[in-house]
Amino acid sequence: MFNSLGNLFRITTFGESHGPSMGVIIDGCPAGIEIDEKFIQSELNRRRPGQSKITSGRKEKDEFEILSGIFEGKTTGVPIAIMIKNKDIRSKDYSHIADKFRPSHADFTYYKKFGARDYRGGGRSSARETVNWVASGAIAKLILNNIGIKINAYVSEVGEIKCPLPYHQLNLNQTESNIVRCPDIEIANKMIALIEKTKKQGDTVGGVITAVVTGTPVGIGEPVFHKLHAELGKAMLSINAVKGFEYGSGFEGSKMKGSEHNDAFYNADNQIKTRTNYSGGIQGGISNGEDIYFRVAFKPVATIMKDQESVNVDGEKVIVKGRGRHDPCVVPRAVPIVEALAALVIVDFYLIAQSSKLRD
Amino acid sequence: MFNSLGNLFRITTFGESHGPSMGVIIDGCPAGIEIDEKFIQSELNRRRPGQSKITSGRKEKDEFEILSGIFEGKTTGVPIAIMIKNKDIRSKDYSHIADKFRPSHADFTYYKKFGARDYRGGGRSSARETVNWVASGAIAKLILNNIGIKINAYVSEVGEIKCPLPYHQLNLNQTESNIVRCPDIEIANKMIALIEKTKKQGDTVGGVITAVVTGTPVGIGEPVFHKLHAELGKAMLSINAVKGFEYGSGFEGSKMKGSEHNDAFYNADNQIKTRTNYSGGIQGGISNGEDIYFRVAFKPVATIMKDQESVNVDGEKVIVKGRGRHDPCVVPRAVPIVEALAALVIVDFYLIAQSSKLRD
Amino acid sequence: MFNSLGNLFRITTFGESHGPSMGVIIDGCPAGIEIDEKFIQSELNRRRPGQSKITSGRKEKDEFEILSGIFEGKTTGVPIAIMIKNKDIRSKDYSHIADKFRPSHADFTYYKKFGARDYRGGGRSSARETVNWVASGAIAKLILNNIGIKINAYVSEVGEIKCPLPYHQLNLNQTESNIVRCPDIEIANKMIALIEKTKKQGDTVGGVITAVVTGTPVGIGEPVFHKLHAELGKAMLSINAVKGFEYGSGFEGSKMKGSEHNDAFYNADNQIKTRTNYSGGIQGGISNGEDIYFRVAFKPVATIMKDQESVNVDGEKVIVKGRGRHDPCVVPRAVPIVEALAALVIVDFYLIAQSSKLRD
Amino acid sequence: MFNSLGNLFRITTFGESHGPSMGVIIDGCPAGIEIDEKFIQSELNRRRPGQSKITSGRKEKDEFEILSGIFEGKTTGVPIAIMIKNKDIRSKDYSHIADKFRPSHADFTYYKKFGARDYRGGGRSSARETVNWVASGAIAKLILNNIGIKINAYVSEVGEIKCPLPYHQLNLNQTESNIVRCPDIEIANKMIALIEKTKKQGDTVGGVITAVVTGTPVGIGEPVFHKLHAELGKAMLSINAVKGFEYGSGFEGSKMKGSEHNDAFYNADNQIKTRTNYSGGIQGGISNGEDIYFRVAFKPVATIMKDQESVNVDGEKVIVKGRGRHDPCVVPRAVPIVEALAALVIVDFYLIAQSSKLRD
Repeated sequence: MFNSLGNLFRITTFGESHGPSMGVIIDGCPAGIEIDEKFIQSELNRRRPGQSKITSGRKEKDEFEILSGIFEGKTTGVPIAIMIKNKDIRSKDYSHIADKFRPSHADFTYYKKFGARDYRGGGRSSARETVNWVASGAIAKLILNNIGIKINAYVSEVGEIKCPLPYHQLNLNQTESNIVRCPDIEIANKMIALIEKTKKQGDTVGGVITAVVTGTPVGIGEPVFHKLHAELGKAMLSINAVKGFEYGSGFEGSKMKGSEHNDAFYNADNQIKTRTNYSGGIQGGISNGEDIYFRVAFKPVATIMKDQESVNVDGEKVIVKGRGRHDPCVVPRAVPIVEALAALVIVDFYLIAQSSKLRD
Repeated sequence: MFNSLGNLFRITTFGESHGPSMGVIIDGCPAGIEIDEKFIQSELNRRRPGQSKITSGRKEKDEFEILSGIFEGKTTGVPIAIMIKNKDIRSKDYSHIADKFRPSHADFTYYKKFGARDYRGGGRSSARETVNWVASGAIAKLILNNIGIKINAYVSEVGEIKCPLPYHQLNLNQTESNIVRCPDIEIANKMIALIEKTKKQGDTVGGVITAVVTGTPVGIGEPVFHKLHAELGKAMLSINAVKGFEYGSGFEGSKMKGSEHNDAFYNADNQIKTRTNYSGGIQGGISNGEDIYFRVAFKPVATIMKDQESVNVDGEKVIVKGRGRHDPCVVPRAVPIVEALAALVIVDFYLIAQSSKLRD
Repeated sequence: MFNSLGNLFRITTFGESHGPSMGVIIDGCPAGIEIDEKFIQSELNRRRPGQSKITSGRKEKDEFEILSGIFEGKTTGVPIAIMIKNKDIRSKDYSHIADKFRPSHADFTYYKKFGARDYRGGGRSSARETVNWVASGAIAKLILNNIGIKINAYVSEVGEIKCPLPYHQLNLNQTESNIVRCPDIEIANKMIALIEKTKKQGDTVGGVITAVVTGTPVGIGEPVFHKLHAELGKAMLSINAVKGFEYGSGFEGSKMKGSEHNDAFYNADNQIKTRTNYSGGIQGGISNGEDIYFRVAFKPVATIMKDQESVNVDGEKVIVKGRGRHDPCVVPRAVPIVEALAALVIVDFYLIAQSSKLRD
Repeated sequence: MFNSLGNLFRITTFGESHGPSMGVIIDGCPAGIEIDEKFIQSELNRRRPGQSKITSGRKEKDEFEILSGIFEGKTTGVPIAIMIKNKDIRSKDYSHIADKFRPSHADFTYYKKFGARDYRGGGRSSARETVNWVASGAIAKLILNNIGIKINAYVSEVGEIKCPLPYHQLNLNQTESNIVRCPDIEIANKMIALIEKTKKQGDTVGGVITAVVTGTPVGIGEPVFHKLHAELGKAMLSINAVKGFEYGSGFEGSKMKGSEHNDAFYNADNQIKTRTNYSGGIQGGISNGEDIYFRVAFKPVATIMKDQESVNVDGEKVIVKGRGRHDPCVVPRAVPIVEALAALVIVDFYLIAQSSKLRD
């Protein structure tokens, strides 16, 4: 059950970086949803390696194939299986680390847990897995679109470079206008320059993604153990390289006084709104109709083009050399991944919310 | 299923702040565990309201009753039910908000989601629920104790006051020596002074808790969607008032270079260790044997002793007055809650890890 | 997770036969359901021991207490906890079997699985557990009642005595008119005589219960692994002493030809009906609007008032003597249990069916 | 979650009869299991259509492809995905029923539930799905083989023809010696003759499969809601056309006296055994080390080569003509399906049983 996400709208995934194929089963997609295959492909293209000079050079078109669940262009209510074949595999790039543990990778923990590991490209621990999330997340987005819920993520920090304005003062339509996916063009250019410089040094750098969900109706989420933000947090923390999650006021909120932090309710044309939104659109784990926003911190990619000290499976000291094709900074490609997971979580909660309202 | 946490070691909880009783069923506790009832009570006492001048004045002894699952002092492998009755209830304190939505509480979202709500003391949305977690977490701790895993949490920030040293430079045995639960005594005194001052102002203040898990064997956690840190994060984000979670290098890690951040492996007397621990003891979602550490951000408590603008169920403008007995700062009492949830998550993963190793 | 039943409407139970209390948490009950406490008690009374001369003499009033989830007479959408205390405990009756394995009980398997067991009254393996199911099933029935779904079970066989007519030729209103719960009064008298005779012999006898669900809308149930009849079967097979389950044509259907067995569709005043109902109201795992009916086989109760050969925990040959208060035939009291489980399963599927229909 | 079976060893499946491919993800397979691909294929061949004169003429080689989870011939502990492409599709055979509801099929219920349906070959409701179960069940069998657990199923009844001997008096090695899979050769010939005759009449006939599990250690299964036999029953009731399940003494057991039915324990060379086995190897939901045996009833296949009265989607009276390639009797091909599901259930419980034993 550990390769599944969601309850009523549940994805189960498979695939290793250098295996024949990645794939995902979506179980619980409602019937009658029109499937726009071009949209799915466009989402995959946003995540695709080789899309720009600041991403990995691995060449994957990431063309997908739907194997079930769609009939005459619409979902039928039964499982949707999507397969994305791995094409540009250079497993030889990895033979030199077959018995070595790369620092800050999952090599050591997988080896110890499973007694062996598929070392080619990181196997199952590779972020190649996220192609499954973007494909299934695209279908979740199609459903949310019908309901009026929109999800926008963007890069708000790369290393020390930070987008100074909050999300509501940015034009999020500009996110896709540049290769780093920051809606503030001036900042974007600085971020790109930093990533290129870092890449030249054979090094990597971390960053932060901010995401905003608009149009969520009141009442999505559950009390206690399936709070909307807790499930969003869990999903985001599932992304490779993520080290932190905060929503609404986040860590900064811990420095505030209650009298500042509380979001006063008021009546805006017969709709109950809040004057501020430190709550981040969620109160008691349940959406209150305001924007849901959160931030996700990514560490620098662990694969660097430098020699590093480590040990091998026999515990002997070895030098790990940087090889393979990797991203100098993961956040530009992680933007559609964050959106996809948010969409998957919210659709699931939407279906749950529907179930409990007894119809008349 | 939304009031349950865990898979093989699963708790399911019930209870409202002003109902007759709180309670928890622990399903999946292995048989043969000796139950130290005094330890359970001592954990409950750490969370208890009224324990010091900086906590809520509600007087609950939080005496527990075990209704099943224990025979002759040991667990029998069947569900353990624990009941903690609510004693010091002053529901009248809440009649004035029966039809009003308190700012930044769950009043509005519960009302909209469920069509009605138990307004007395916040009902199910009250942090009274956490008594269930501490009681069941105490049993999880007893199991972990047998295996050599220890969990220590402490208050590292209150408002702007921050404990400057990292956890490994602090003497965590001093955490319980003061009422704010900060192991740096000098800082603790400043924190206490800030909380007292804030309380006098009728206001509240947020804070941060740091937690450390030592002794975890290599191989606890699962790849992809049940990463150890993702489940820890989800659990922490389930605590009332929590706005953020980070582990290892956290948000700061996003500013680092890969060459700085990578934790080099080395062989220390035939045990593979890492020279630094930015990974926070978890790589690829699986424990690597180093200390697991994380930070949890709490917003200021929403109940303040000041008049606040809001609306009632009819959308009319109203003034909400601060009443009831509440904490000026939640973090001192949240220390055992953080520990309890961490214990519950880790025991669950420990049992999962056992299942997959086919015995010879 | 092994003491829970259901998905969206999920019960989790606890309690041992001779522990302080039985109890159940209902998680997922929709808000706004009026709770008729008298009805819950009347259902518990139907299951209660000591209700007639052909049931166990244990004297339990089975008075229940609701600890959460109800406010001003209605459900609030949060967990409902119900506690039923054990009163008439005579644990001394069991000291003679503390180290012996009673034939065809769970003594041996619990001992081997858990390394110890609560031998008093069978502990967790006792059918005392079913009191939790009837209490929670009563709430499920209240929900189904609002939707127009009715569940009726009755005793159709005791030993070799069989009710010759099919359910639709019986007056099911007569089920409660006699202590054995068979709607055919003449047959009922024969069954009662057989049970009394068997009891005098210190022996026990098995039987069969037939259940009928009317009013189920089309579309309840899921394809493949959560077929409506598969979940009903699983629930029924969870009842102590059950050895078989069949629905619709059942085992007899295996002897038929397809041309006889197929249920022809026809249009009855703009409602699509079937001319026969060998399908038992379920096709492809999903309700088709016809009556759902099934049969459940119970073995004779294993506790008999005769000396039996067995072994003790050391593997030594011993004689087990029959003691304690037990039913000579379990089916009369199992009628409300079968109904309760059916109600729990169907409410769960009803909520699931709601979730997948996107509202306009 | 409704297309998944199992907990720790969980399969999730997809595919429609006339879609491009069937497939299954196995999540939770322990690492280090040697995968014998020839064995998997041989199991698929036992289920394959067109294998004899008494099965459907659809020509599927059912060649499988493993897409993940195996490295250097062994499982790695991550999800195993298996794909079986649909080759011999004649969807035109189904255009005549695109808007008609075939009697006793899932056409009507799927249409009403989902608002549309993939009518080609029954879509998701087709028994083509079972190819996924046999493929994943083969891997479960490989694991059980290592532990010494064996599963044997055979056809014990076809229509009125019944194998008179109980399983332990039959030579189960002869099951595969004939096309109907009955180990009693004389009876097998009668069954074959009946099926051939029925086929000539354009009709179908039902049957019963008996299954036996040997070598199960004591302690597999869980109390209360995940009893071993309840999960076996649920799995069997998930098979298309199944109408009933019984284990041990089954429905016949309900006619017995307790003094006859009880299985006396005795000490056989320091192993505790029972003299009889009416319990069917399971007591209190947990294996007791004796043979586990059960029976599964199948109705006659609903597709017959005769004209049948029905209605179309507009509720108009129509005649459904029998077309397509179908089995005159489903039980010979269902033997490996029953075995596969039993293997999946038992491996899952085996892993669960491992988890709860704290290692020293």
